[in-house]
Amino acid sequence: VSSILPSAVNELIEVLSKLPGVGPKMASRLAFYLLQKGKDDINQITDAILGITQSLRQCQKCGLIAENDLCPICQSQTRNEHQICVVEDSLDVVAFERANSYQGVYHVLGGVLSPIDGIGPEQLRIEQLMARLVEHQECEIILALNPSLEGEATADYLKDEIMKVNSSAVVTQIARGLPMGSDVEYADPTTLVRALEGRKEF
Amino acid sequence: VSSILPSAVNELIEVLSKLPGVGPKMASRLAFYLLQKGKDDINQITDAILGITQSLRQCQKCGLIAENDLCPICQSQTRNEHQICVVEDSLDVVAFERANSYQGVYHVLGGVLSPIDGIGPEQLRIEQLMARLVEHQECEIILALNPSLEGEATADYLKDEIMKVNSSAVVTQIARGLPMGSDVEYADPTTLVRALEGRKEF
Repeated sequence: VSSILPSAVNELIEVLSKLPGVGPKMASRLAFYLLQKGKDDINQITDAILGITQSLRQCQKCGLIAENDLCPICQSQTRNEHQICVVEDSLDVVAFERANSYQGVYHVLGGVLSPIDGIGPEQLRIEQLMARLVEHQECEIILALNPSLEGEATADYLKDEIMKVNSSAVVTQIARGLPMGSDVEYADPTTLVRALEGRKEF
Repeated sequence: VSSILPSAVNELIEVLSKLPGVGPKMASRLAFYLLQKGKDDINQITDAILGITQSLRQCQKCGLIAENDLCPICQSQTRNEHQICVVEDSLDVVAFERANSYQGVYHVLGGVLSPIDGIGPEQLRIEQLMARLVEHQECEIILALNPSLEGEATADYLKDEIMKVNSSAVVTQIARGLPMGSDVEYADPTTLVRALEGRKEF
């Protein structure tokens, strides 16, 4: 950002550099890329950004970002409502759906517990999850939070809460282990420990 | 991009993933980052993008992106007009100005010769550079193009053209060598050859 550039360009660079994963260098490049574009291309981008400010909400059941009160998955008659996969955010649901093998439903927490960032149980969609569990006495809750410290702590917390509300629920967690295509040689120690713990008869 | 997400979100991800340096993963993250933002933040971003579509032009003299017919540098009375630093684009000017030591003026070519991409001399601001050289019989042209194959080829071409128009002009090129803070050990062979060629008495 420099005083020799037009203020509109400096402002754009400043705004872009606040986006996650976009540093000042990339912000400059993006700004000059946009400068080379015509008004139509620019309007396409701004229209797309403004498009998400309109009529989007969270699915009232699972919390997935949705156009209507219920997301397509919760609306579907073919999904197994007795299997609820708990994830951190909507993109995790997209990842599971892309894998195209899970037939249950989801619950989007909206993050993980993180006291440092001021995120306690009230900031997440935990109460809504418990409400769903009361409805379905017999169900499996699949915990699919990210394998981070916060994710694991949140999983522990959820397990306790679920047991309080519905002691007949089965709580499972997706496996930790070596991702496909990876190398044992380069795997981190924690992953190897988890992979060993999770070993199965072959 | 998935059918379970609202179409507005899918569209935004698609548009963002076309930006340079933004892959599909980063586009998804950016889209969900924007989804969490309020209307004010979103409007700030779109306003900043739309801001550059208004009243920006190239400096009539040097080609730098500018608000007026002349950029602040070409308007300045204190810059040495007999020293013209030729760069590829406006961001290169910003880099030199940040270094805060050059007192001459600039000429922004708008790229480098690249026959494969259909960029010949007519696509660059070469004619405008020659016009400036006719005005100043005694001058130094400092070639500061990127040290790439195309940059070097463009520098060779420019040197020939400059000599045709103004044989009393002095054409120089900024030094190639080891960047500050780098390691001889990790320097690529071409850089080392250039650094050797450019050695000076110590």
